[in-house]
Amino acid sequence: MSALAPVLDRLDQSLDQSLGRLFDLLKVKSISTDPAYAAECRKGAEWLVADLKTIGFDASVRNTPGHPMVVAHHDGPAGSPHVLFYGHYDVQPVDPLELWDSDPFAPAIKEIGPDHKVITGRGSADDKGQLMTFVEACRAWKAVHGGLPCKITLLFEGEEESGSPSLKPFLEANAAELKADFAMVCDTGMWDRDTPAISTALRGLVGEEITIHAANRDLHSGEFGGAAANPIRILARILADIHDDTGRVTIPRFYDGVEETPSQVLKSWESLGETADDFLGPIGLSVPAGEKGRSVLELVWARPTAEFNGITGGYTGKGFKTVIAAQASAKVSFRLVHKQNPDKIRAAFRKFVEERLPADCSVEFHKHGGSPAIQLSYDSPFLTKAKQALSDEWPKPAVMIAMGGSIPIVGDFQTYLGMESLLVGFGLSDDRIHSPNEKYELSSFHKGQRSWARILDALTR
Amino acid sequence: MSALAPVLDRLDQSLDQSLGRLFDLLKVKSISTDPAYAAECRKGAEWLVADLKTIGFDASVRNTPGHPMVVAHHDGPAGSPHVLFYGHYDVQPVDPLELWDSDPFAPAIKEIGPDHKVITGRGSADDKGQLMTFVEACRAWKAVHGGLPCKITLLFEGEEESGSPSLKPFLEANAAELKADFAMVCDTGMWDRDTPAISTALRGLVGEEITIHAANRDLHSGEFGGAAANPIRILARILADIHDDTGRVTIPRFYDGVEETPSQVLKSWESLGETADDFLGPIGLSVPAGEKGRSVLELVWARPTAEFNGITGGYTGKGFKTVIAAQASAKVSFRLVHKQNPDKIRAAFRKFVEERLPADCSVEFHKHGGSPAIQLSYDSPFLTKAKQALSDEWPKPAVMIAMGGSIPIVGDFQTYLGMESLLVGFGLSDDRIHSPNEKYELSSFHKGQRSWARILDALTR
Repeated sequence: MSALAPVLDRLDQSLDQSLGRLFDLLKVKSISTDPAYAAECRKGAEWLVADLKTIGFDASVRNTPGHPMVVAHHDGPAGSPHVLFYGHYDVQPVDPLELWDSDPFAPAIKEIGPDHKVITGRGSADDKGQLMTFVEACRAWKAVHGGLPCKITLLFEGEEESGSPSLKPFLEANAAELKADFAMVCDTGMWDRDTPAISTALRGLVGEEITIHAANRDLHSGEFGGAAANPIRILARILADIHDDTGRVTIPRFYDGVEETPSQVLKSWESLGETADDFLGPIGLSVPAGEKGRSVLELVWARPTAEFNGITGGYTGKGFKTVIAAQASAKVSFRLVHKQNPDKIRAAFRKFVEERLPADCSVEFHKHGGSPAIQLSYDSPFLTKAKQALSDEWPKPAVMIAMGGSIPIVGDFQTYLGMESLLVGFGLSDDRIHSPNEKYELSSFHKGQRSWARILDALTR
Repeated sequence: MSALAPVLDRLDQSLDQSLGRLFDLLKVKSISTDPAYAAECRKGAEWLVADLKTIGFDASVRNTPGHPMVVAHHDGPAGSPHVLFYGHYDVQPVDPLELWDSDPFAPAIKEIGPDHKVITGRGSADDKGQLMTFVEACRAWKAVHGGLPCKITLLFEGEEESGSPSLKPFLEANAAELKADFAMVCDTGMWDRDTPAISTALRGLVGEEITIHAANRDLHSGEFGGAAANPIRILARILADIHDDTGRVTIPRFYDGVEETPSQVLKSWESLGETADDFLGPIGLSVPAGEKGRSVLELVWARPTAEFNGITGGYTGKGFKTVIAAQASAKVSFRLVHKQNPDKIRAAFRKFVEERLPADCSVEFHKHGGSPAIQLSYDSPFLTKAKQALSDEWPKPAVMIAMGGSIPIVGDFQTYLGMESLLVGFGLSDDRIHSPNEKYELSSFHKGQRSWARILDALTR
């Protein structure tokens, strides 16, 4: 008999108890962004440490200049891999409170359809419910086998929802303690209710704010129109130049480091059956706006972009003013993929702008963040094993997806600890994280625990 | 002996008295845009009627839904032309009051250099000082000759600084009474202190506000960037398309009705010696931004433009937000010349925008005013006579200039009364109209009176 089967049985039998523990954690109002809840954040960390000790983890609350970290260690059999599991115990604020159907900190089970139950409450999906799936898997394994299948370090953060100010210094200061063979991060979602997913790529980001300066004051367009430089016209021309007619970015060397997605990966994305209408319909659109000839999933998962996030100049109030503005500005961001270099992209963009500037105008740049893309391997042994384990648990086989946005921790693990991450999570797109009436599928919580048990078993065999 | 010489003498001798009368009018706080000063506006009208009666005009205060008009008539010799003279007795607000060196409604003579005196106070240049130059010329002529050299109608408006809401209805309702052979408008300036000017062209204006609508809500650029339409990108592309690389407007048929300026007119503008540096230097610029190969004066006086007066979309606050906006908008205006048709330009622009819109986006247009350009003949007999009269009075010969902006009354006289206008004024570009410390040159007031006497004499000979 395999080591796994009794663990899965144990998880099925102890679901009610595991829900009780999750509810205890969900009742803690660990809103990290609001200083009024600092004591609640600490309470969350302390609850976790106490709970992890009951499993046999060497767990401690670790102070930072902000909210504390929880770090816990458990040995595994000699020669087994060492895994770092990451989650966060802090939650988003709950306002507007009046839009909640019930108290966000009074978790409950709600039956929303035949055989369809959800756990309600702030943090149920993001991320307390998710992190507890892994803790429960460890607990059951320990109860059944008296130990864990591999060496496990847990890292639970209390500032993920408020910009993680203490995270990088903490990773740097405790690199030797936290370094493992790879990390597992449980803060992502499934493809759909039946289909588990592993996220293998996250886009990077470069933000730039540019301000074009022309005349030394606002001008009257009757007096000067036709002779004086108009910064809105200059800015519009620069922005318009950034894409060609096929949607490609024209900045020289922008695509340096961008790789074509392997055809088998593209095929697996195709097999998800997501059409442009599926993706764009809910937001009222229908025509993919990016590079022509690529699917919407490839566009948001594996292609870089230039987007204009804000623009302002001249008179923007009600009515009309025939002014030629002294300046105009725009916020521009680039989503990066693969090996695109944020610093080189920023420099290339600035050069591109400067080359298009009339001789009597000037430009001011403000830097807003820059991070490279994360591209995890599509075929590492542990990814292959995790994929099979997930496919064994759920109705449909696991798919490899990507994310258009970023999860900074994944880059930080690479940078500070030299570790790749496995991104597996059980959230659904309708979980309303960050919004009123957040929920987590009961099936996500239950089968999530079973999934981790299967993954741990697969990784160590 | 000519009829003119004694009138000029009389004007020289009565300068002090004419200043006293101007000061009385300048003390009236006729700020038309502020309802708190409605009684002061009426007082201004009544003062003018009383003064004109002392000259022998049949003058009356004429009520409107807003501030009153002043209309006055005086007969002339049989067979003499009938002239309508226009000015306005209302003034701009005076705030910020703390920037004035002295009370704006306590007019004074200030010596600002050797043999260089100015009249200070709100309205001294715009337009009370200007309109009184004509009244004083009439007064002196009447005193010397017992009559006027031609039939004269005066129209003084009290709402010019607040959009002239009552003007068109008043012109329509009183067309028969106000119709004359031509109009004289004294609300413009000289080329410089020594060089009088006649303005022969005013550009028209079409204003449009466009809003591009894309997704049905603001989007996260990580989640949707690369697949969803970005309205700022669409707007920038449309605006950038409006000009080609030579600065010409690319909207089809935009130049219909635009004529090349006669070479002798271009030559006379060249002779003014205004370089791009002269024109653009004071505003911190140096490169003419309009159609290549044309002088700055031709660009602002005789060429049409497309200008972007305002633009807004997405996140424009401090910092950065990786949003893809649901909408973006711009205020666009066109300065028109010659026979360009405002309605056709507006329609052509809207078509131009619609043709560039992705199939899943929409555009909303808001109309903001439209008026054709005014092009007065360069060589009518009365213009030729007025030019000679001005050249006789001032150190340098009169020049024919144009204005980049518009004076709506000139179009209204054409539309409602079928009259051309002669635009002569004595303001200087440093008169600070609409600003604190408005002034009018004493020489403008004195030689302005003498100029009108010369023009009246010339026109009737």
